[in-house]
Amino acid sequence: MMARAPLALTLGDPAGIGPELALAAYAARRQAGVPPFALIGDPDHLARLAERLGGADAPIAAISDIGEAPALFDGALPVLPLAARVGAEPGRPDPANAPAILESIDRAVALARSGRAGAVVTNPIAKAVLYEAGFRHPGHTEYLATLAVAPGEAPPRSVMMLWSEGLAVVPVTVHIPLADVPAALTQGTIVETARIVARDLARRFGLSAPRLALAGLNPHAGESGAMGREEIETIAPAIATLRAEGIDARGPYPADTMFHARARAGYDVALAMYHDQALVPIKTIAFDEAVNVTLGLPFVRTSPDHGTAFDIAGRRLARPDSLIAALRLAERLAGTEGGAAER
Amino acid sequence: MMARAPLALTLGDPAGIGPELALAAYAARRQAGVPPFALIGDPDHLARLAERLGGADAPIAAISDIGEAPALFDGALPVLPLAARVGAEPGRPDPANAPAILESIDRAVALARSGRAGAVVTNPIAKAVLYEAGFRHPGHTEYLATLAVAPGEAPPRSVMMLWSEGLAVVPVTVHIPLADVPAALTQGTIVETARIVARDLARRFGLSAPRLALAGLNPHAGESGAMGREEIETIAPAIATLRAEGIDARGPYPADTMFHARARAGYDVALAMYHDQALVPIKTIAFDEAVNVTLGLPFVRTSPDHGTAFDIAGRRLARPDSLIAALRLAERLAGTEGGAAER
Repeated sequence: MMARAPLALTLGDPAGIGPELALAAYAARRQAGVPPFALIGDPDHLARLAERLGGADAPIAAISDIGEAPALFDGALPVLPLAARVGAEPGRPDPANAPAILESIDRAVALARSGRAGAVVTNPIAKAVLYEAGFRHPGHTEYLATLAVAPGEAPPRSVMMLWSEGLAVVPVTVHIPLADVPAALTQGTIVETARIVARDLARRFGLSAPRLALAGLNPHAGESGAMGREEIETIAPAIATLRAEGIDARGPYPADTMFHARARAGYDVALAMYHDQALVPIKTIAFDEAVNVTLGLPFVRTSPDHGTAFDIAGRRLARPDSLIAALRLAERLAGTEGGAAER
Repeated sequence: MMARAPLALTLGDPAGIGPELALAAYAARRQAGVPPFALIGDPDHLARLAERLGGADAPIAAISDIGEAPALFDGALPVLPLAARVGAEPGRPDPANAPAILESIDRAVALARSGRAGAVVTNPIAKAVLYEAGFRHPGHTEYLATLAVAPGEAPPRSVMMLWSEGLAVVPVTVHIPLADVPAALTQGTIVETARIVARDLARRFGLSAPRLALAGLNPHAGESGAMGREEIETIAPAIATLRAEGIDARGPYPADTMFHARARAGYDVALAMYHDQALVPIKTIAFDEAVNVTLGLPFVRTSPDHGTAFDIAGRRLARPDSLIAALRLAERLAGTEGGAAER
C-alpha cells in the first residue's frame, strides 16, 4: 500500500496564533488522531516559539522534501524551510514577514497541485499586514484561487463552506453589508454557488446525491410574499433550475427552523443567503470545532474557523480544536477525492 | 399562606393544536411540574376532543370561577366556559369560531388585570381566520396590548422575547422584509426596546442589573465600518444612551460569536437586530422548549413558540413541550412580579 501524501500546513501570520496551534496540534497528534502534516515555515522560528511556550514535547525536524514527513511524524514535527525569513514576535504583526507568509501559501498550493501534498491547510493571515507589503488580492481564498491556474488565466469561482460533524453551511453572499444582501442575491449567484457545492460534496465528501437545503431571506421565508418577495422571485426559481439539472435542492425554508437537530438530519448542507444566517447556527453549536473548507478549487483546502488572534498570541490561550478538525477533515477529503466519479 | 392565583390559558384557534396541547400538558402535570391553570374554553368541545384522541386520563371540570382551579387541578382539568360556542374540527379552521377565540383572550386578560389569574398563557391563533371574521388588529400581541388599557387609550409598546433556560433573545425589528431592516433600525427603536427589556428583566425575572448584549447588523459587526456603518452610526450610540441611563448594555457584538455556550454565560438577554438573528440561535439550541414572553404589558403573558399547526391538529403528533415551558415560566414570572422593585 502506498503511503498517503502528507498535508501541507501553511505558516499563516507568524505573529498570530497559527504557529503555536501547529505545535499544539502536533503535541495532540496521538490522542486527537492528527494526520501527518508538514509545516511550511522556519524551523528556527518554530523552535524558538516552542521554547518560549515551554513546549518540551515539540522536537522540530527540518526536511527538504514533504515526502519525508510521514515517516518522521511520530517523532518530530516536520518543517519544510522557506527561503524568506521569519522574524516574528507573537502579537506583533510585521509587514516584513509578508514574503514568508506568501511563499508558504505558494509552496503549499504547488505541492497540492502536483499531488505531493494531499491537501492544503492554511493558518490564518491578516490582510492588513499583507496590504502594507503590497499584496493586492481581496483575501486569502481569492489568492489561493489565482494560484490554482496558470498566470493570466481566470481563477475558478470558489465557495466557502463551514463544516462540522453535525452541520455544514454555505453563505451565498459573504462579506458585504446586510443592506447590500438583497441586491446581491441573484438567481445566478445562488445557482452557481449550489452547483459548486453539489459537485464538491459528491466528489470530495463521497455523497452521491447531496441534499442541499436553501434558506429563505426573510422572516418565515417571506410567508408567501407577505414579508418580502425574494423567496418567490429569486430563490424558488433558482431551486427549480437546480432541480432541473438533477441537483437535490430544497426550500426555501424559514431559517429559524432549519438548524435544530431533527431538521439538520434532513439535509447534507444548508445554503444560507447571507453571512450571519450561515455562521450563527454553526458557531452556536460547534464553536471550537467548525472548519472552513474552500469548495471549487482543483485541490483540497481547509482552514481553522478563526483569525490570527494577535491579542492572545504567544500566551498558550488559543485552542487548537479547529486546526485539528481542519487537519482531520483535509485528510478525509484528500483520501476520498479521487474515489467518487465527477458529476 | 394564600394560594397563588392560577394561570389563565386561552383557547387559541380550536381547529389548531392548542386544545390538544392543553390536554397533553394537563396529562403531564405531575411528571413535568405543570402549575395549576384553567383553560378558558368549551368543556364539551374539550371532552369530545379528549375522547377523539383516546385520552382517558383527562377528566374535564367546568368551573364558574377561576379561583376554583387550584383545588380541582390534581383531579380534573378546569375549564372556564365561554359564552360563545366552539364548533371546531381539528385541522379545519372556521371563522365561526372567531367570537370564542377572542372572548377567551378578553377574559384571560381581564382575569390577569384583576389579579385573579396569575398570568395569561395564550394558545396560538391564525390571524387569517380572525380577519375573515372582521378582526382588525395586526396580531395577537397587539390585540393583547389594546386590552391592557382603557378603550381609546394608547396601548403600551410591547416587546417579544424568546426565552429558554440557556438563552433569551429579543429581536429589535420583527416581522418585516430583510431589505427593510436597515431603515427600520433606529437609535430610538433600539433604546426603547432595550429599556423595556431591562425593566421587565428586573421586575419580572428578578435580575437586579440585567446584562443586555446587543448584536451588530453586519458581518463581523461591520468590522470597524468596512462592511456597513450601522454599528457605528446607530447601534453604538444607542448603547451609549442606554449606559448613560444605568442600563448594562454591551456591544455591538458580531452575531456569529455571541451564541455559543461560553458567550451566552456573559449576558442575560441578547438583543438581535432582526427576526432571524434572534430566532435562528434559540431555535437551533432549544427548538421544543423555547417560550415566547411578551414584555411591556401590565400583566405576564407567555405563549408557546409555535403556530396553530392545522396540518397536524387532532393527530396526537404535536409536542406539548413548549406549552408546558410557557406555563412553567408564566408561573415563575407571576410569582416574582411584585417581588422586585420597579426601576
